[in-house]
Amino acid sequence: MAKIAIVYFSGYGHTAKQAECVQAGALSVPGTTVEMLRIDQEGNLSEGAFEQITAADAVIYGSPTYMGGPAWQFKKFADASSKPWFTQAWKNKLAAGFTTSASTNGDKANTINYFFTFSQQHSQIWIGLGLMPMNAKANSHEDTNWTAGFAGALGISPSDANPDEIRKGDAESARQLGIRVAEFAPRISS
Amino acid sequence: MAKIAIVYFSGYGHTAKQAECVQAGALSVPGTTVEMLRIDQEGNLSEGAFEQITAADAVIYGSPTYMGGPAWQFKKFADASSKPWFTQAWKNKLAAGFTTSASTNGDKANTINYFFTFSQQHSQIWIGLGLMPMNAKANSHEDTNWTAGFAGALGISPSDANPDEIRKGDAESARQLGIRVAEFAPRISS
Amino acid sequence: MAKIAIVYFSGYGHTAKQAECVQAGALSVPGTTVEMLRIDQEGNLSEGAFEQITAADAVIYGSPTYMGGPAWQFKKFADASSKPWFTQAWKNKLAAGFTTSASTNGDKANTINYFFTFSQQHSQIWIGLGLMPMNAKANSHEDTNWTAGFAGALGISPSDANPDEIRKGDAESARQLGIRVAEFAPRISS
Amino acid sequence: MAKIAIVYFSGYGHTAKQAECVQAGALSVPGTTVEMLRIDQEGNLSEGAFEQITAADAVIYGSPTYMGGPAWQFKKFADASSKPWFTQAWKNKLAAGFTTSASTNGDKANTINYFFTFSQQHSQIWIGLGLMPMNAKANSHEDTNWTAGFAGALGISPSDANPDEIRKGDAESARQLGIRVAEFAPRISS
Repeated sequence: MAKIAIVYFSGYGHTAKQAECVQAGALSVPGTTVEMLRIDQEGNLSEGAFEQITAADAVIYGSPTYMGGPAWQFKKFADASSKPWFTQAWKNKLAAGFTTSASTNGDKANTINYFFTFSQQHSQIWIGLGLMPMNAKANSHEDTNWTAGFAGALGISPSDANPDEIRKGDAESARQLGIRVAEFAPRISS
Repeated sequence: MAKIAIVYFSGYGHTAKQAECVQAGALSVPGTTVEMLRIDQEGNLSEGAFEQITAADAVIYGSPTYMGGPAWQFKKFADASSKPWFTQAWKNKLAAGFTTSASTNGDKANTINYFFTFSQQHSQIWIGLGLMPMNAKANSHEDTNWTAGFAGALGISPSDANPDEIRKGDAESARQLGIRVAEFAPRISS
Repeated sequence: MAKIAIVYFSGYGHTAKQAECVQAGALSVPGTTVEMLRIDQEGNLSEGAFEQITAADAVIYGSPTYMGGPAWQFKKFADASSKPWFTQAWKNKLAAGFTTSASTNGDKANTINYFFTFSQQHSQIWIGLGLMPMNAKANSHEDTNWTAGFAGALGISPSDANPDEIRKGDAESARQLGIRVAEFAPRISS
Repeated sequence: MAKIAIVYFSGYGHTAKQAECVQAGALSVPGTTVEMLRIDQEGNLSEGAFEQITAADAVIYGSPTYMGGPAWQFKKFADASSKPWFTQAWKNKLAAGFTTSASTNGDKANTINYFFTFSQQHSQIWIGLGLMPMNAKANSHEDTNWTAGFAGALGISPSDANPDEIRKGDAESARQLGIRVAEFAPRISS
């Protein structure tokens, strides 16, 4: 029975779509419950969200990659978490992450690396995507992990694509991340 | 004649003190002018600040390291810069950075690395500290670059130290960064 | 009953000393066994080492920080591991890391971040130090985690210090890392 | 009149091909000379190579991305450079970098970030690609910087592609990096 909190920001809906895929994956594992905690445009969470994170076994961080890192709204959440950090209230939770941006690389690795660094300040235990990349000539964005994320799930949404146009491969990668976290969370929290 | 903009956020004054040292170093190079552009507690700059950055030959970024990265207020500035980014209005400026935190390491390298990544999105040219580290047993925080920054100036202000207690070595490292940027900026912009 | 492999390189003995502290911490947890796998000066491990890693529940990576990253000998090991990577033979192990260098910062975070990236390619699960930093004016290198590592254990050995002069705080941080890995490894591998 | 050294390792020829594109770009700028310094399979450069780097105005680093970072052979070169580092003999040179790997992301950013960190230890001045990414639905690997590198030139060569199959967009990105370094190097070294 794993309780997972997905803490994410989405500017135009692409990351929210990715978050839904992660959620769907997690919920496909029997006994899993998921709290969707969306950071608003001012960088705030709704009341009680910190307590929901405290109560979770695992937390999954998500943000678009803007200007080479997570959106400032996500960072505002991270800075606000210095209070639970001080008491290490979120220690030993399983942690994971996902990000999306318009460009092929677009410094997405830096966003995932920030999520990792942040998780380590909270003494959390990081789990990545757990999928091999699809990188032969015949592969395309139809294939799971064609974006080749390792530490997290990476999505590429072209600048003129709307959220519903999420690529099949990216949707499945996000779903697999949710499954992986849901499967490992009970082991960590037991 | 180099025009330098120092764009920085400071939460409790330690980074502001560091910024003043960078400024003093820059101004010690004849013909240099410095604009101090302080990001406020809401992550905003005063009106006209973006134009001042556009007019500068070099820009120096500063922020405390909070929760493993720059403060959210700095990131809000970075995200807002997507407008000049889109037209590459800040291209080819010399860029540098500084950060401070209470802990010895405290993930300060991640903050400097973020400044670097950000500068590269703007197609800027990065210059680091240019000083060897002081790392023998006899060295102390009295020594320049005892904190051992390479890509930027690093300050360590203990959690119970006020801004005026900036260590001699950290103040001098920051001053040297200002000098280095002021010396190289005219070459880049010429 | 956790089986831990410590895979490390040491150039002058400081990292080997740190590795011994990690080992001692791990062995203090009942039921733990530790394999010490030291990479030689040519970047090679003794025969059978890869099989020992395959058999382990957790693997802890160690290297000095040289020129801003792990020693080339460690990277040679990492590159050689592309064979078990291809079959994901080291998947789902718990992973952790430690590094030492002469300078205060000395880009140690980049070495730990590399270990993390490497672990994620192998689909491993990363656990950090789990200790708060000691960062008040009264703190010194006598204090555990005065170096302020989060994602791993960081040691500072001045350029003129021999390995036996390891600071008390650094020795204890390394020992705590060993304990933490030993306590969590059985949960992951169960 | 800029003298550029391209220091690179190539395992199977893809990075060598990329290096040739960088070279061609640099040589297209009048008055530029280029030394091609290829690191061999044992991580060594030919005799006199360090002196050629010392004599250069700019140095461009290249390596495939293997297991989340530069190849060990490149790192062996980096570690060997601790001698010129100690005297800061390579200080104030312009520096840049390129990498290639089979996968879409494949942690290429970490390789470029390592090159950057390495350059900062040598007190060098980093210049990136200076190109906007091509990230609309209509874009493909025919387009310059479709891989979306900022801090350096990124190439994607599928696992079953030979070096001559370098994508048009990647070849042109590499060429543009050479041009950019050649244009700025005289300003830095003057």
